[in-house]
Amino acid sequence: MIHVPAEPQGAFPDAWRYCVGTGRLDLALRHDYQESLRLLQRDIGFRYLRGHGLFSDGMGIHRPYEWQGARHVHHSFTYADQVIDALLDAGIRPFLELGFMPSGLASGDLTVFWWRGNVTPPADSKEWAALVRATLTHLIDRYGVDEVRTWPIEVWNEPNLPMFWLDTDEAAYHRLYEITAHTVKEVDAGLQVGGPAISPGADEWLTGFAEFAERRKPPVDFVSRHAYASGPAQHVPFGSHQTLAPAGDLLDQFAAPRRVLKDTSLAGLPVHITEFNSSYCPDNLIHDTALNAAYLAPVVTGGHAHADSFSYWTFSDVFEEAGVPTAFFHGGFGLLTHRQVRKPTYHLYAFLARSGEELLARGDDHLVTRHRDGRVAVLAWAPVDASGETPGPDGHTLRLSVPVAGAEAFVRRSSVDEERGNAYTAWRHMGSPRSPRPAQLDMLYDAAEPARSHARVPVTGGRAELTLTLARHEVTLVELTPVEDETPPWWDERRLLGGNPAP
Amino acid sequence: MIHVPAEPQGAFPDAWRYCVGTGRLDLALRHDYQESLRLLQRDIGFRYLRGHGLFSDGMGIHRPYEWQGARHVHHSFTYADQVIDALLDAGIRPFLELGFMPSGLASGDLTVFWWRGNVTPPADSKEWAALVRATLTHLIDRYGVDEVRTWPIEVWNEPNLPMFWLDTDEAAYHRLYEITAHTVKEVDAGLQVGGPAISPGADEWLTGFAEFAERRKPPVDFVSRHAYASGPAQHVPFGSHQTLAPAGDLLDQFAAPRRVLKDTSLAGLPVHITEFNSSYCPDNLIHDTALNAAYLAPVVTGGHAHADSFSYWTFSDVFEEAGVPTAFFHGGFGLLTHRQVRKPTYHLYAFLARSGEELLARGDDHLVTRHRDGRVAVLAWAPVDASGETPGPDGHTLRLSVPVAGAEAFVRRSSVDEERGNAYTAWRHMGSPRSPRPAQLDMLYDAAEPARSHARVPVTGGRAELTLTLARHEVTLVELTPVEDETPPWWDERRLLGGNPAP
Amino acid sequence: MIHVPAEPQGAFPDAWRYCVGTGRLDLALRHDYQESLRLLQRDIGFRYLRGHGLFSDGMGIHRPYEWQGARHVHHSFTYADQVIDALLDAGIRPFLELGFMPSGLASGDLTVFWWRGNVTPPADSKEWAALVRATLTHLIDRYGVDEVRTWPIEVWNEPNLPMFWLDTDEAAYHRLYEITAHTVKEVDAGLQVGGPAISPGADEWLTGFAEFAERRKPPVDFVSRHAYASGPAQHVPFGSHQTLAPAGDLLDQFAAPRRVLKDTSLAGLPVHITEFNSSYCPDNLIHDTALNAAYLAPVVTGGHAHADSFSYWTFSDVFEEAGVPTAFFHGGFGLLTHRQVRKPTYHLYAFLARSGEELLARGDDHLVTRHRDGRVAVLAWAPVDASGETPGPDGHTLRLSVPVAGAEAFVRRSSVDEERGNAYTAWRHMGSPRSPRPAQLDMLYDAAEPARSHARVPVTGGRAELTLTLARHEVTLVELTPVEDETPPWWDERRLLGGNPAP
Amino acid sequence: MIHVPAEPQGAFPDAWRYCVGTGRLDLALRHDYQESLRLLQRDIGFRYLRGHGLFSDGMGIHRPYEWQGARHVHHSFTYADQVIDALLDAGIRPFLELGFMPSGLASGDLTVFWWRGNVTPPADSKEWAALVRATLTHLIDRYGVDEVRTWPIEVWNEPNLPMFWLDTDEAAYHRLYEITAHTVKEVDAGLQVGGPAISPGADEWLTGFAEFAERRKPPVDFVSRHAYASGPAQHVPFGSHQTLAPAGDLLDQFAAPRRVLKDTSLAGLPVHITEFNSSYCPDNLIHDTALNAAYLAPVVTGGHAHADSFSYWTFSDVFEEAGVPTAFFHGGFGLLTHRQVRKPTYHLYAFLARSGEELLARGDDHLVTRHRDGRVAVLAWAPVDASGETPGPDGHTLRLSVPVAGAEAFVRRSSVDEERGNAYTAWRHMGSPRSPRPAQLDMLYDAAEPARSHARVPVTGGRAELTLTLARHEVTLVELTPVEDETPPWWDERRLLGGNPAP
Repeated sequence: MIHVPAEPQGAFPDAWRYCVGTGRLDLALRHDYQESLRLLQRDIGFRYLRGHGLFSDGMGIHRPYEWQGARHVHHSFTYADQVIDALLDAGIRPFLELGFMPSGLASGDLTVFWWRGNVTPPADSKEWAALVRATLTHLIDRYGVDEVRTWPIEVWNEPNLPMFWLDTDEAAYHRLYEITAHTVKEVDAGLQVGGPAISPGADEWLTGFAEFAERRKPPVDFVSRHAYASGPAQHVPFGSHQTLAPAGDLLDQFAAPRRVLKDTSLAGLPVHITEFNSSYCPDNLIHDTALNAAYLAPVVTGGHAHADSFSYWTFSDVFEEAGVPTAFFHGGFGLLTHRQVRKPTYHLYAFLARSGEELLARGDDHLVTRHRDGRVAVLAWAPVDASGETPGPDGHTLRLSVPVAGAEAFVRRSSVDEERGNAYTAWRHMGSPRSPRPAQLDMLYDAAEPARSHARVPVTGGRAELTLTLARHEVTLVELTPVEDETPPWWDERRLLGGNPAP
Repeated sequence: MIHVPAEPQGAFPDAWRYCVGTGRLDLALRHDYQESLRLLQRDIGFRYLRGHGLFSDGMGIHRPYEWQGARHVHHSFTYADQVIDALLDAGIRPFLELGFMPSGLASGDLTVFWWRGNVTPPADSKEWAALVRATLTHLIDRYGVDEVRTWPIEVWNEPNLPMFWLDTDEAAYHRLYEITAHTVKEVDAGLQVGGPAISPGADEWLTGFAEFAERRKPPVDFVSRHAYASGPAQHVPFGSHQTLAPAGDLLDQFAAPRRVLKDTSLAGLPVHITEFNSSYCPDNLIHDTALNAAYLAPVVTGGHAHADSFSYWTFSDVFEEAGVPTAFFHGGFGLLTHRQVRKPTYHLYAFLARSGEELLARGDDHLVTRHRDGRVAVLAWAPVDASGETPGPDGHTLRLSVPVAGAEAFVRRSSVDEERGNAYTAWRHMGSPRSPRPAQLDMLYDAAEPARSHARVPVTGGRAELTLTLARHEVTLVELTPVEDETPPWWDERRLLGGNPAP
Repeated sequence: MIHVPAEPQGAFPDAWRYCVGTGRLDLALRHDYQESLRLLQRDIGFRYLRGHGLFSDGMGIHRPYEWQGARHVHHSFTYADQVIDALLDAGIRPFLELGFMPSGLASGDLTVFWWRGNVTPPADSKEWAALVRATLTHLIDRYGVDEVRTWPIEVWNEPNLPMFWLDTDEAAYHRLYEITAHTVKEVDAGLQVGGPAISPGADEWLTGFAEFAERRKPPVDFVSRHAYASGPAQHVPFGSHQTLAPAGDLLDQFAAPRRVLKDTSLAGLPVHITEFNSSYCPDNLIHDTALNAAYLAPVVTGGHAHADSFSYWTFSDVFEEAGVPTAFFHGGFGLLTHRQVRKPTYHLYAFLARSGEELLARGDDHLVTRHRDGRVAVLAWAPVDASGETPGPDGHTLRLSVPVAGAEAFVRRSSVDEERGNAYTAWRHMGSPRSPRPAQLDMLYDAAEPARSHARVPVTGGRAELTLTLARHEVTLVELTPVEDETPPWWDERRLLGGNPAP
Repeated sequence: MIHVPAEPQGAFPDAWRYCVGTGRLDLALRHDYQESLRLLQRDIGFRYLRGHGLFSDGMGIHRPYEWQGARHVHHSFTYADQVIDALLDAGIRPFLELGFMPSGLASGDLTVFWWRGNVTPPADSKEWAALVRATLTHLIDRYGVDEVRTWPIEVWNEPNLPMFWLDTDEAAYHRLYEITAHTVKEVDAGLQVGGPAISPGADEWLTGFAEFAERRKPPVDFVSRHAYASGPAQHVPFGSHQTLAPAGDLLDQFAAPRRVLKDTSLAGLPVHITEFNSSYCPDNLIHDTALNAAYLAPVVTGGHAHADSFSYWTFSDVFEEAGVPTAFFHGGFGLLTHRQVRKPTYHLYAFLARSGEELLARGDDHLVTRHRDGRVAVLAWAPVDASGETPGPDGHTLRLSVPVAGAEAFVRRSSVDEERGNAYTAWRHMGSPRSPRPAQLDMLYDAAEPARSHARVPVTGGRAELTLTLARHEVTLVELTPVEDETPPWWDERRLLGGNPAP
C-alpha cells in the first residue's frame, strides 16, 4: 500500500513540457505538421519547439548573388517568417538551433540526411556572422525584442559526430561557437545562447567546452546535450532494430552535464537535454509502441531532478531525415503519425499534462500530483524489461491510499497498453496497410483513444483507496475529483421503468 | 450458433434513416442545434428533419398590419429562410409540418407547450390558405421546385389530442386538411401532402381519415401516425417516470396504418411514422440510458418491414416544450444532449449507419449486413426486460458463423452499455452536476466514446466464428474486414528490442 | 489647414470600446449571434456586452416547484452558463443587468416587448434576493471571483418608464436597488453594483437616486443612464420615422450624470451610459445608413470627455423586442444585420479600433491619433444636418499637415458613404429584397466592404500634407505609415515589358 | 454601341476552367497551398490540376532496396495519397503528368530546377513500366476505377527542351511514350493517355509524334502542347524581364496542334494546352500586374475556339523551381501569392467564373453571357500594348445595349486595374516589403479586393444601356439582374429624418 501524503513535497516542475523536437524547420510549412502542432498544443502544451535546418537551403535565408560585378548576399525570410508565424500561431515558440550551413556559404560538400543538410564549417566567418546577425535582427524587428529574448539559441547540432560536423573538429566548433555567441550578444545582450548540443557518449566534449569557455570567455547562457538509450542499429529494409538500455540510463545521461561541469565555470548554468528518446533511429518501430510509453514514463516523470528540460525527439512523424516513410507505422520519432494518429507515448505526455501543480508522491511506477482545485492525478505505469528477455509483467498491481476531500470521489481511469489506446496494434491486426484507406484511418483514430472507466468511490478519513492492476506496458491516469452531489432528493433509480417508489 | 448465410436476403432498406424529429423549428437558429445537426449528419446522415411550429409566432411568417385603414398580411420569411438554409447546409431536408396557428390568425387562445403554440383552427380559412400558398411559393422560388417536391408536407400534428387541436374536432381537422391539401397542389401538383399525424391510441382517426378521403377525394400522398411505448406519466419535479410496453408494441404501432387502411382507398400509400420513441415525455431519464438503446434496437432494425419511415423523436435536447431544462441529463428526447454529448441511442443509430447495403441475417438480438466492398457488419444487442421486473441479463451470448472473404479478418468491436460509451452513467458518478463545468463536460465527451476492441481472426471455409458476450443493455457493432496483409517478409516481432532474428 | 501637433495631447481613452449593447441574453444561444460577436470582436474588440432579460423566463433560472407539499425554488443555469461561456469564448465579458422579473416571482402581469419580459416588482423580496445571491454565487463558482469582480452589475433597466417598471414607482425601485445591492455585496464585497439605468428625460431620477443614496447608504459603485437623440416615433407598418436632435445633444446627455450629481455623495463615481444611439426605435432605418455613422462620429470620438463609457445599442440585428423582423434592412439597432452584413456605423467603430494610443488632434470633423510604432490614423467625417432641411454637404474638404517619420509615407484611405461601403444602398438598388437570396447576400457582403485607396506621399520636414474631400455622409480613415523602402537597386519599371534599362 | 443580341449564339464553353497548373506535386502537402486551393475552388472552380514531379524523389514512390542479396523495389504511396486526398478534398482532380525520373531508376544525373528533378530516361524500361503500373493500380484501388478514368494521363513534360529531357532525344521520348501508354491501357483500357507535352517553338515534334503514332500505333487519347508569349529572359538578381508578343500569338499557339495534326491519324483528338502564361519565367513581375490580367483576357475568353483546354501556369506562388522566393511579390506564376493574396489575373478568372451558360456576344474587349436565371454578365477589358511602346489607353470606353428582363436592372460593377483591386501596386507603395509584417499583409488582403459599384438602371424595350469607361489595364465585370422591387408602398425616403410625407 502506497500511502500518498496529504501534504505536498513541493511543486511538480514542468521541465517535461519545456521543449519538444521536430524535423527540419521548413516542414512547418506543411498542413499535416500544422494540424499536428495544433492538436499537440491543445492536449499537451509544450513551450518550445527545436528543429534542425534553420540555415539550410530549404529555408532559403542565405542568398548570394552577383550585381554590378560583385558578390552580394540577400538575407531572405520568406519561409522563416511563415514557419515562425505558424509556430507562434499554434502557441509554441522556437528554440533556435543555428545550423546547418547554407550551401552558398559552405566550405565543403558533406551533407547529412536525405534532405542534404550541409555540415561543413563556413567558408567565411564574417559572412556567417552576418547571417546570424541579419537573422536575429530580423526576428527582433518582426516579433519584438521581449519575445525573442525568451527563445534560447543553440549553436549547431551534435558537432561531436562525423555525420554532423566535418571531421568532428572540436576546435573548429569552438571557433564557430565563439563567433556566433558574440554575434548573438551584439544583436542584443538579452538573448540567450548556448551549446554544445552533443550526442551521448562524448562527455569529453563537455569538458572541452568548459575549458574553452574558461580560456576564451565566450557568452554561454546554457549547456545542452542529447540522450538516447539504444544500441547500434541492426538494419532491415526501411527499418532498424536496436537493443535498449534500462530507462535509468537516460536519467544518468540527463544528469551528465551537471556532473561533468560541476567544478567548472559553467557549473550552475541551465542544462537543456535538447533531444532524447529511447532509440535514435527514425525507423525503429519501438517508437510506435506502448512499450516505449511505459519505458519512458519514469524518465519524463523524473527528469526534472537532473536537467532543466528534456525535449522528446520528435512530436511528429512528418520528418524526412531518412527519406519519405514507406509505411504508415514505420518507427518514426513522432508522438503523432502522419495524419495525426496519437501513439502511446503521446498519451503519456497528454496524461502528464493533466497533472497537478503539487507533487504528492513519486515512485518507480507512479507519480501522484494534486491540482489547486483538489483534483488528484495518479499516473502509473507497468515495469518494462528493456532487455527483452521477458515480455514484462501482465498484471502489475499498485495499491494506493490517496488523500482527497469530501465524502466520495469521482474516479476516472484512462489507459493505454498493448491493446487499448493503441493504434499501432490495431494497424498490425489490419494487416499493416502501408497507406491506409480513409476507412482504415478512421478506425485508427478511434483505436488511438485511451480506454476509459468511471466510478464513484467512498472517501474515508480523507482518503480513497485504489487498487490498480496494470496490463503489459500499460500507462494509466487515474483522476480523483471530490463529488458534490446534486442528485435531487426525489431521485429513485427503481422508478426508471415506472415502478413504485420505495416506501 | 447463428449461421449467417453468404447470400443476401436482399437489400437492407434504410427506412430507419429517412427522418428524425426536432423541437420547434426556430430552435434551428441556435448554435448548439446547428453544431448538433452537423455532428449527427456526419455520423448518421438522416434525410429529413421534422419539427413543429413552422407557422407559430416564433417564426414570424404571418404578419398582419394596418395600412390606409385596411387589414393586410405580410408573409415574412426572415427566419424561415435562415432555418431552412441551416438545414440544407447541414445536409438534411425539411419534412414540413404545417402548424401551429399564428396568433394573428387563430380562432382562440388555446396554446400548447411552454413556448405557447396556438392550437386552434384558423379564424379565416382563406387567410390560412393564403399563408400556406405564400409559404410554399416562396420556398419554391428560393430553393427550386425540384428540391421542394422532395419535401413531404404533413398537415398539423396529433389533432386527436386535446392539447394539440381544440376539442379534438375531427371534422374541423378534415376541413383544415382539405383546404390545405388543395392549396398545396395548386401551388405545384408535384408536391406531396399527407396526414393525419395522429398520436397512438386513436386509430379510429385513420378510419375516419380514410372515410373522409373516400368522400371528399382530397389529395393524399402519404399517411402518418406516431408511436410511443410508455404508460401514463408519474410526475416528480422536473421529471416523469413511466412504464414501458415491450418493444414489439412499437412495431405493432408502426404496422397499424397499413393494417387499418388495407381495404380503403388509402391502401398502398407510403406510411410515415413521423414520431416515435420509448417514452413521449421530454423529461423521462429513460431517454438518456443504454436501456433505451438496447430497447429500441429491434425496432430500428426491424421497422422497415412495417412502415416507410419512422422518425426518432428527437435528435437533440435543444428542445423547449417543457421549458428550459434544469439539468444536463434531464430525460430529454435528444440523441444528443445540450452541447452535443452523444447518448447511447445516438450510438445505436451511428452503428446502424455503418451497416452494409445487403441484408444477410436478422434476428431477435442481431442484424447482419454486408457492404459492397466485402465488409460485414454485425449489430447485436442485449435483451431488455421492459417490465423492469428483472434488470435484464448481464452476459447475453451470441455465437455466429459469418461469411467473409480472405484468409483472415480484421475485427473491430464497438460497444455501449450501462458503463461503457455511457456519459449518463459517468455523469451520475460525478454527482449529477446540473450544469457541468468545462472540465466535467470534457470528461463527458470522452465518456460517450464507445469502447473499442480489435483483433485478427482466422477465416476457414469462407467463414469466421464470433462469440459475443453482451453486458447488460449492451449494443455492439462488430465489423469484419478481409485482411490484405502487407507486413513485409523481414518483420520479426522478436527483434523489436534488438534480439536476434529467428534462425 | 489643420496643423496636427507632433506632440500628443495625451492618451486617447478607449471609453468608446468599454461596452456594447445586445438584445435579450438568450439570443446569445443563436448561431448568427455568435458569429456576429466573433466578427465584432475581431474587427472592433469591445470589452463588455450588456443586454436585458437575465432573469426573464427565456433564461430559465428561477424555477419554483412543489415537493412534498411545499414550494421550493431551483436556480437553474443551463442557459446562463451557455450564454456566458459563449460570450467569454468570443472574448467579451458580461455587463450584468439584473432583470426582468421571472414570472414565477412577479407581482403582476405587465410585460414589455414581443418576448414578454415581466416588469413588475418581486412578489417576495427575500426570494428576489435569493435569486440574485444564487446567481452571483454560481457565477463565481464557475468563472472565479477575480473574473466576476470585473463584471459591472446594474440594477434593472429604465425604471423611470412605465413600460419597464410598474407605475414607474421610484420608491419601489429604490427598495429593489437596496436589497439587490446589499445582496451583491454579501456575495462578495469586491463586486461592483450600480444604477439607476434611466432613460433620457428623467434626470430628476438621478437626483432622487442621490438622495436615496444619501439617506440609505446602499452600496453604489457606479451611476448609469441612457442617451438617445430622436423625437417621438411616427409609425408606418413595421417601421418608425423620427426627428433627430443635433449630435451634440447626445454628448450633453452623456454629461448629465456628472453635472447633476456633482454636489452629491455620488459625485466622482464612474458614469456609464449603458445605452445610446441616434434613435431608440428598433425599426428606424436611420440605423442602417451612412448618415447614422457620420452623425455619431463626433459622439464616439468625443464621448470620453463626459462619461466613462457609452454603449452602442446594439451590436446586432438579432434582436426581437418588436418581433421577428420582416425585412433584411428594417431599421434594427445592430451594427451588423442578420447574417452579419456590416452597416456603416460598424465601420465607424472598426475605423476607431484602428486608432493609436496617443491623441494628436481632435476637431469637429476629425480625430488624429498615433500608434506607438509611428503609424498615424486620421479619422474624418462629413458634417450631418440632423434637421433634414438640407441633405448635408457633398464635397466637404479637410486639409491636414500630419507629423510622420521618414522620407515618405504609405497612405491608405478607407471610406464609407452613401454609396461606398454601404450595403443598405446596394440593397435598395436591388429592390429591397426582404429575404435576400444567397447570391444577393453575397453581393451585400461585398458591398459592405469599405472603398480603399493607396498612395505613397512625400514627407517634408517631418510632415505629410493631406487634402481629404469627403462625399455626403462619408466617414473615412486615413492611415499613414513611414515607408522603409526595400525596392532593390536594379528595379526599373520601364523594363517590365523587356525594354532596355535606362542608361 | 455594341448591340448584344437577345438570342444566345450557343453555350459558352468552359474550356477555360478545365485545368490549372501547379508546381511540383509534393508542394500540395503545404498548408499555404491547401488554403490557396480551397480559396481558388470557392471563387473559381477548376476541374483539374496538373503539376510536375509525381515520380520525383520528393514523392518517394519508387523505393529500391536490398533484401537477401537481391534488389527489390517497393512502390510507396505515403505522400501520393496525401497529395491526392488533399486535391480531391479541395474539389479538384489530378491531371496526371508521368515524370520525372526517380533517381533510383535514372540513367544519368541531369536534373532540372532548384529541387533537382531527374530528367534522364529510365535505366530499365521494365522497372519504369512497373512503376507506372503499380501507381495506376494503386490509384484505382484507392479512388475507384470510375474516378481514375476521368484523370487524363500525360507522358512527361516538354521533352523537346534539353533542360527537361536528356539530349532532347525524340526517339527516346517515343519509346518512353510507347511503353508508358501500353502500360496505362494494360492497367485499364478506360484510362486516357496522351502527349507529347511540348513547349512552344517545336511543332515539328507534333509532326514527329503523329508519324510515330502512325507507325507504332500506341494508344493516344489526347494531344498536349504548351503556350507562352514571352521573349528571352534578361536576368537581374532574383528576376527576369522579357518582351511579350501580342496576346493573339497565344491563341495561335493554342491552335497549333489542330492545325499541324489535321491530316494525320491524330486529327480530331482532344487538344489540351497543358501550360500557358504570358511569360515562362517564375520571376517575371509581369505575373503580378493588372497588365497581365488585361493581356490575357482575350485569351481566356477566346481560347475555347482553338483547344479543349488551356491550363494557366500556375495557381499559386507556392512553387520552387527557381528556389525559395526572396520577396513577397517576385514575379511568380501564381494567381495567388504566398499567403493567398489575390493577383489581378486571379480576378480575371474569378470574374469569368461568374459568367453565364449562354454566350450572347464576344469581341476584342468584351464577353457577354447570360445565366439561366436571367442575370447577364458583361466582362470587359482595356486593350494592352504588349510592345510596351505606349502605356496603353487610360479611358477606353465601351457602350453596350444589353438585353435584360423586367423594368429595371440592378447593376453591379467589379473592377481591377493598375490601382484598384491591385495588391501589387499597394505593396509597391508600401516600399516593396520583402516579407510583409502581419499588419501589412492585412492591408494587402484588403487592397486585393476589387472595387465595386452598384446602381439601378432603367430597362427600355427589354434593353439596358451601359457606358463603361475602363482605366488603364482594367478588367471589369458588370452584372445585370432584373429587379423585383419589394419596397413597400409606404416607403418615403424624405421621412428618414422625421420630415412630413409627401402630400
